[in-house]
Amino acid sequence: MEMTGKNRKITPIPARGMRDHLPEEVLPRMEVIDKLRSIFESYGFLPLETPAMERIEVLTGKYGDESEKLIFKVMKRGEELLRALEGAKDGIVIDRQTKTLEVSYQSLAQIFSQALPDLGLRYDLTVSLARVVAQYGGKIAQPFKRYQIAPVWRADRPQRGRFREFIQCDVDIVGSDSLLADAEIISLAVEVYRRLNMSAFEVLVNHRGLLKALNSACGNPADRYNDFCTAIDKLDKIGRDGVGEEMAERGLDTSNLKRFWKLAERSCYINEADDLDALLADMNGFIAAGAGGSESIEQLRELFALLRNLGAEENIIRFDPALARGLDYYTGPVFEVVGRDRSIGSLGGGGRYDELVGMFSNRSIPATGTSFGLDRIVEVLIDQNVLAPRRTTLNVEIIDLSGNDMSAAYCGRILKILRREGVSCDLGYGRGKKAGKQMKSADRRNIPFVIIVGEDEVDDALTGVDDQTFSARAGVTVRRLSDGEQRRTDLSATIRWIKESV
Amino acid sequence: MEMTGKNRKITPIPARGMRDHLPEEVLPRMEVIDKLRSIFESYGFLPLETPAMERIEVLTGKYGDESEKLIFKVMKRGEELLRALEGAKDGIVIDRQTKTLEVSYQSLAQIFSQALPDLGLRYDLTVSLARVVAQYGGKIAQPFKRYQIAPVWRADRPQRGRFREFIQCDVDIVGSDSLLADAEIISLAVEVYRRLNMSAFEVLVNHRGLLKALNSACGNPADRYNDFCTAIDKLDKIGRDGVGEEMAERGLDTSNLKRFWKLAERSCYINEADDLDALLADMNGFIAAGAGGSESIEQLRELFALLRNLGAEENIIRFDPALARGLDYYTGPVFEVVGRDRSIGSLGGGGRYDELVGMFSNRSIPATGTSFGLDRIVEVLIDQNVLAPRRTTLNVEIIDLSGNDMSAAYCGRILKILRREGVSCDLGYGRGKKAGKQMKSADRRNIPFVIIVGEDEVDDALTGVDDQTFSARAGVTVRRLSDGEQRRTDLSATIRWIKESV
Repeated sequence: MEMTGKNRKITPIPARGMRDHLPEEVLPRMEVIDKLRSIFESYGFLPLETPAMERIEVLTGKYGDESEKLIFKVMKRGEELLRALEGAKDGIVIDRQTKTLEVSYQSLAQIFSQALPDLGLRYDLTVSLARVVAQYGGKIAQPFKRYQIAPVWRADRPQRGRFREFIQCDVDIVGSDSLLADAEIISLAVEVYRRLNMSAFEVLVNHRGLLKALNSACGNPADRYNDFCTAIDKLDKIGRDGVGEEMAERGLDTSNLKRFWKLAERSCYINEADDLDALLADMNGFIAAGAGGSESIEQLRELFALLRNLGAEENIIRFDPALARGLDYYTGPVFEVVGRDRSIGSLGGGGRYDELVGMFSNRSIPATGTSFGLDRIVEVLIDQNVLAPRRTTLNVEIIDLSGNDMSAAYCGRILKILRREGVSCDLGYGRGKKAGKQMKSADRRNIPFVIIVGEDEVDDALTGVDDQTFSARAGVTVRRLSDGEQRRTDLSATIRWIKESV
Repeated sequence: MEMTGKNRKITPIPARGMRDHLPEEVLPRMEVIDKLRSIFESYGFLPLETPAMERIEVLTGKYGDESEKLIFKVMKRGEELLRALEGAKDGIVIDRQTKTLEVSYQSLAQIFSQALPDLGLRYDLTVSLARVVAQYGGKIAQPFKRYQIAPVWRADRPQRGRFREFIQCDVDIVGSDSLLADAEIISLAVEVYRRLNMSAFEVLVNHRGLLKALNSACGNPADRYNDFCTAIDKLDKIGRDGVGEEMAERGLDTSNLKRFWKLAERSCYINEADDLDALLADMNGFIAAGAGGSESIEQLRELFALLRNLGAEENIIRFDPALARGLDYYTGPVFEVVGRDRSIGSLGGGGRYDELVGMFSNRSIPATGTSFGLDRIVEVLIDQNVLAPRRTTLNVEIIDLSGNDMSAAYCGRILKILRREGVSCDLGYGRGKKAGKQMKSADRRNIPFVIIVGEDEVDDALTGVDDQTFSARAGVTVRRLSDGEQRRTDLSATIRWIKESV
C-alpha cells in the first residue's frame, strides 16, 4: 500500500447515508444481536448466510420501478465492460473500423444502468431466501425455519433514521401453511421484546382475508382490496376522517365505514375472552356477504388459542381489525408491534406471505415471518434506559507504576493468569506514569477495577513458579473504582473479588 | 413484489465466486466467530464497524494497479450517471444539439471505470481503519485496540479456497510503538489457536529490521531489501536452491547465502534460552555491518521476554530468521502461524506496520496487528475433527401424536415453559404422524431429545394452573435419542434431565 500526498487531501468520511459505528455503539448493538440470535435459536430457527451481492437478474423485476432505482449496482470489470457495450443494441452504433461509438445521449442512462452492471447489492433478505429455497430444494428440509441478520443496501435519500446501509433481522418459516407457524412467529416477536426488556409494547394482529371481506362488506369490488388496505394503513397518521377522505379520493364506497369503525374500536386483547368472542361473532355478521371472510375469522380464533398456549402474557396481543400492514404481498395473518401509547411508532411486524418465496421455484411456497429493525430497537432501548453505550469490555486494567523490565514481566504474568481465569484485562499504556492519572484514565473508560503494581509488589522470587503458586503468593493492590475500596491481597483473592463484583 | 414468469427462468445460483452458507455450515462458523470475539474482548480489543462501501477515492491508489482492478465498483445512479459522462473529458465528444456522443472505443473502459463509479466495496479492513482514525481523531483514545470481523470483496479469479467474498478478522493496536503492543498481538494469536483447540501449530517470529540488515550483510544494496524479502518468502514453496536462483535472477548477491542458511537453520523456540541467546549473538555478528540490525536484535530479545511472561506455552513461539512475510508494508516484528509439520500451510500472521494507518492523517501512526482467516480456520478445525457441521440448535423436539386442538394447546404450554427455562425446543411439524417416523426425523437432524405427547399425556385439568404447578404435574414421555433411554415423568424432572445431558 502507498501513502501518497494525494491521500492526505481525501476527506476521511464514510459514503453518503452510511455510518461508522464506534465501539461504544457497537457493544450495545452486539448485545441486542446476540440476544436475538439466542432467542431465535431457542425456537429452532437456524442461521442462513447469503452473499451481499446477487446477480443483477436475481434482483431486478422484484421491487417495482421506484424501488428498483434504489438498488446499488456493481459494474462489470475489464473486458466484460467493453463486451457489454458492444452487446447493447439500442441507440448505439459501433464502428469497428474507426473504433468509435455513436451513442444517443438520451438512451445512455438506460444503456448504462442495464448493460454495465452484472451484480447488485441485496435490497432485502427475502429475495435471497427465495433464491436459496429454489436452489437447494430437497437439501433444505421444510418447514425451513431460518433467520438471517445482515446488512442490506438502498440508495434512498438519506434522512433522520433512514440510512443507505442498515441491518435487517429476518425470521421466517418456509414451507408450512399451518397456523402454528404463524403463532410461533408472533410468540417469537413477543418473546424478543420481552427479553430485551422493552417496556409498554403490544402486538396488533389481524388477517388479510378478513380485510378482503371487509373491503367487500364496505361495498367495494374485490379488486379494490389493495386500495382499501392502503387507506386503512394510514389510520395512525391521518385519523378516521383522513382515511374516509383517502377512500373517497380513491373512489371507494364510504357509506358503510361507520359500521366498520364501530367494530374496529372494539379492538381487544386476546385474553379478554368474552369481548373477543363477541367481536369476532359480530365481525362475522358484518362481513357475511364477503367471500372467505368467515374462514379468516375461524383462523384468527385458532391462532389466538395457539398464542394463548404459547405463553403470550396478558394484555400483550390485541386483535385489531383496523391493522392493514402496507405491503401488498401478505396473504394471511398479519401483525405489528407498537408502543402501548403509540408514541414510539411501529417497531416491526410481519405476517404470512404465501406467494413470494416460490418466485424462483415455479410454484407457491407458503411462508410466514417477521423482521426486527436493529437501529430502531437499539434507539428505543437506549431511550428507555434499558441499554447504554458501553466504552469497555474490560474488568480490570493493570497499572504498572515502575514501567521497567522487571515489572513488565510481573504484569505480563498477571495479565496471562487473569485472562485464563476469564477476567478480561489489559495493561494500561500509561506505564510509569502516576497512579492517580492512570486510575482516572481507567475510570473515564468505565473499567471497574485497577490492579496497581508498584516496586513493592514485584517479587522476583516468583519468576520460576507455576501459575497456581504464583496466584497464591503474588501480592497485588487492587482497587474498585466505583467506591474507591482498595485491598492489598494475593492474586487468587483478587480474582475472586473481581468475579463477585462484575 | 412480483412473481413473474420471467423469474422462473432465472437460474437460482449465487454470484460467481460467492457462497451461500447453509445453517449446518453457519453454526460452526458462528461458534468460531463468537470465540474470537470473546478472546479479543478479554484482551481489551473493542469492536469497530464500518460500511461495506467506501467512497471510491478512499479505495483507489492504495493497493497497486493489479489489485485495484479487483475492487468491485458501484455505479452512480440516475442523473449523476449522465453528469459523470459529461464531465469526462478525454476521448469523448458531446453534441448537445443532436444529443449524441462520440466516444473513442479504446478509452471507453477507462472512462467507464473512472467516471461512472462513486463507491467501491471494501477490499480490506485496513483502509477503513485508517479512514476512521483520521476522521475521529481525538474522539478515539490511543492506543486504539480495535477488532473488526466483516466481509471484504475482491474480484479475483475464483479457485479452490479463494472466493470473491470472504470474512476478515482483523485485530490491531493503533498508536503505540511499544513492543508490548507487538507482544500482545502475538500472544493473542497463540491464545486464539489454543482456545480453538487447533492442534500442532506454532508461531514463527522475525523482525523486518533484521531482514534489512541481513540483506546488507549478504552484500546487497539497501534498496534491494524488498527483493530479498520476496525471494526468502518463497522458501516454503521452492526450497533453498529455489530461493538462491530467485535471488540470482533478481540480480542479488548470493555469495554469502550459505552463512545465512547456516544461521537460519538454527531457528529455535523462545523458551530454549541458551540456543536462542547464542543464535541472537551469532546473528548480531553476521549482520554487524548492517545498519539498524543490532537494534532489531535487541527488540527481538525484549519481545521474546515479554512473550514468555504473557504466557506463551513452551515450544509454541519460534524465532525464525528466514520468515519474511510477503507484504512490503511491515516495518518491525512480523510473525506467522503455521502447522508444526508445515502441512496445513499458513494460518495467518501479522506484524508491525507503522506507515499505513496514517495515510489519511497527514502523519505516521504506529500500528501492529494480525488477521485471522475464518474460512481457513474452520476448514482446518473440521479436518482436525475439532469442529463439525451442526444441523440443529435444538435440545428437544416435541412430538405431538394426536395433532388435535387439545394436544396443540398442551404442547404449546410445554414449549413455552421449556424455552423460558433455557431449553431450546420446537414442535415437530409432523404432527399426528407415527412416533417412530417423527423420532427418526428428529434423530436425523441430531436433536438429542424428544418429548412424546400422546392422548394419555394431555391433561385437560392443567389448563388453568400456573407454570410452576403445570411443570410439577404435567406428565410427559421423554426419550434420549442417542441411547434410546426413555422416561415417563413430570415436566420439571424432564427439564433437569435434559439440562444435565446436553
